[in-house]
Amino acid sequence: METIHIHSSTKFYLGRNFLKKSLLEPFGKLRRVLIADENIKDLYAVDLSIEMEAELITIPSGERAKSRAAEKRLMEELFKRGCGRDTLLMALGGGATTDLVGFVASIYMRGVPLVFIPTTLLAIVDAAIGGKTAINAPYGKNLIGTYYHPKAIFADLDMLKTLPENELFNGLAEILKMGLIHDVSIWKKPDILKAIRGKLFIVGKDPRDQGIRRILNFGHTIGHAIEAETAYIRLLHGEAVAWGMLAATRLAELTGTLKGAEADRIARVILSYGPLPAIGDLHPDRLLARLSSDKKTMQGKIHFVLPTGIGAVKVMSGIDPALIRQAAAEALRKKS
Amino acid sequence: METIHIHSSTKFYLGRNFLKKSLLEPFGKLRRVLIADENIKDLYAVDLSIEMEAELITIPSGERAKSRAAEKRLMEELFKRGCGRDTLLMALGGGATTDLVGFVASIYMRGVPLVFIPTTLLAIVDAAIGGKTAINAPYGKNLIGTYYHPKAIFADLDMLKTLPENELFNGLAEILKMGLIHDVSIWKKPDILKAIRGKLFIVGKDPRDQGIRRILNFGHTIGHAIEAETAYIRLLHGEAVAWGMLAATRLAELTGTLKGAEADRIARVILSYGPLPAIGDLHPDRLLARLSSDKKTMQGKIHFVLPTGIGAVKVMSGIDPALIRQAAAEALRKKS
Repeated sequence: METIHIHSSTKFYLGRNFLKKSLLEPFGKLRRVLIADENIKDLYAVDLSIEMEAELITIPSGERAKSRAAEKRLMEELFKRGCGRDTLLMALGGGATTDLVGFVASIYMRGVPLVFIPTTLLAIVDAAIGGKTAINAPYGKNLIGTYYHPKAIFADLDMLKTLPENELFNGLAEILKMGLIHDVSIWKKPDILKAIRGKLFIVGKDPRDQGIRRILNFGHTIGHAIEAETAYIRLLHGEAVAWGMLAATRLAELTGTLKGAEADRIARVILSYGPLPAIGDLHPDRLLARLSSDKKTMQGKIHFVLPTGIGAVKVMSGIDPALIRQAAAEALRKKS
Repeated sequence: METIHIHSSTKFYLGRNFLKKSLLEPFGKLRRVLIADENIKDLYAVDLSIEMEAELITIPSGERAKSRAAEKRLMEELFKRGCGRDTLLMALGGGATTDLVGFVASIYMRGVPLVFIPTTLLAIVDAAIGGKTAINAPYGKNLIGTYYHPKAIFADLDMLKTLPENELFNGLAEILKMGLIHDVSIWKKPDILKAIRGKLFIVGKDPRDQGIRRILNFGHTIGHAIEAETAYIRLLHGEAVAWGMLAATRLAELTGTLKGAEADRIARVILSYGPLPAIGDLHPDRLLARLSSDKKTMQGKIHFVLPTGIGAVKVMSGIDPALIRQAAAEALRKKS
């Protein structure tokens, strides 16, 4: 089992079939509550709650977990059970679960200890790392949240065996992103451990998202707009990010930060992992309108992370909307 | 004007009639939103929003501001106006206002810059200091919140002139508390600046409330139970704390940590600032039941801060409930 230190107070455990009660010994005599997505209740949650001697609470699966209503229900369930500040909340599930439970842990009685057990590739390499918690508002995704770090992250790679293929692509897109923005060796050969280390490295340099951490948004500017326009349902996050990376890569070519041949190569590699679900009926004008309501753009400027080569990006703002529109339109017409 | 540094990133300004636009120069070009309790809209908020060139949003007055519904409304108002991360939230009002706005600032887009302009003595000497934000849950007061520090606190003592007398007592109770737990000179002669410095000193030693900061709860264990039993309406916080200090002082005498003569002297001084509203019909058994649902006691143990003399306290748990009941009953029968 690999153990990686993240934040001063967080440990990352990566391994296979190692989730035993003894892992919780460092936490002493805390009351334990395992919070799991209802979809994995029978698959993992019931057994794990027994092994970990934890109470079990289930929450809705996917983005529905991140509504204010679901957040309120989870808080009330904890109050109703009389959970105090000495309760360890353990989130078992994908990124939506870790986002919600992280947020609740950060505001419940001004913060209770937290552990993540991510069960999807996306959560392992991305969502569970970095201390960002979030729920959605009617005005957009992740508009309500905090910075709050789990005490530990336990990632069991054996759990990935039960994931459907598109869920693996969902995480792979973020791994490829890490390759493009940070580490060309990941781009050449996707690697979970290297992707985790890459995110830890970038987040460690800029915990509050005020500088270099922005490069993690590569593919997310248009990706979030695509997710919003498709109502968070038709596409997985990684799929939207893949489309967003294609658009950002084309935009880099149009603005002259990236050579055409390089842009083509990047697009080919991304599409080789496809097939990406078609969203050809999504009008670029609607994406542009969405961009201006993204929280990263509410300050008036739309920032783009654009590749300047493989393994290197730069952040740009003030790009001509006509170019953004063109890049999005051309990217969305691409086929695997 | 006195300026006191608190937290590394917070400045405390204490003075009279100094609230000018130029104070905000250190914040640069942020969009400004002043959030004020509806009761002081005409008294201060409209004029101040013009002076500070800030948009104005009003919220309910008193504890009603701290409901989840009020929090949700304020968040939605900010979203509706398109406020981004570059928005400075300025809370104008008493402790309920700073608690709510502090909480919203901490979770809105994972945190926006915050300024407090406390308008009550209680908020100036206590609520605005220390980074605790909170709203109420149906299960109890302040059960939902974060630690989040304002960039600056502007306290204009001239605003206290318009406060009713019981609002002054409301703050005075916390000043007296500071005297009893920390600084005998404040006990002898209540002093706003010294009380602020006292709270800053204690909070600075223990920002996350895991050690010495607990002594700030002197009078609050039973005080919170009294507030809960009186539905947060009949009594002001400081009045409940005054009753709580009387009970804790009597409890200290009963448990032998404080001599009877000292206990009598403390009670006499507190009551000399009275009159405290009568709550003689409040049954001690109901207070005891409340104590076990307080968030500080949900871990199974009820902690009490008990004076060992004037200017010194100790934290005790495991006290015989019969003694707690007796102390509360006898304290509630006292008259100014």
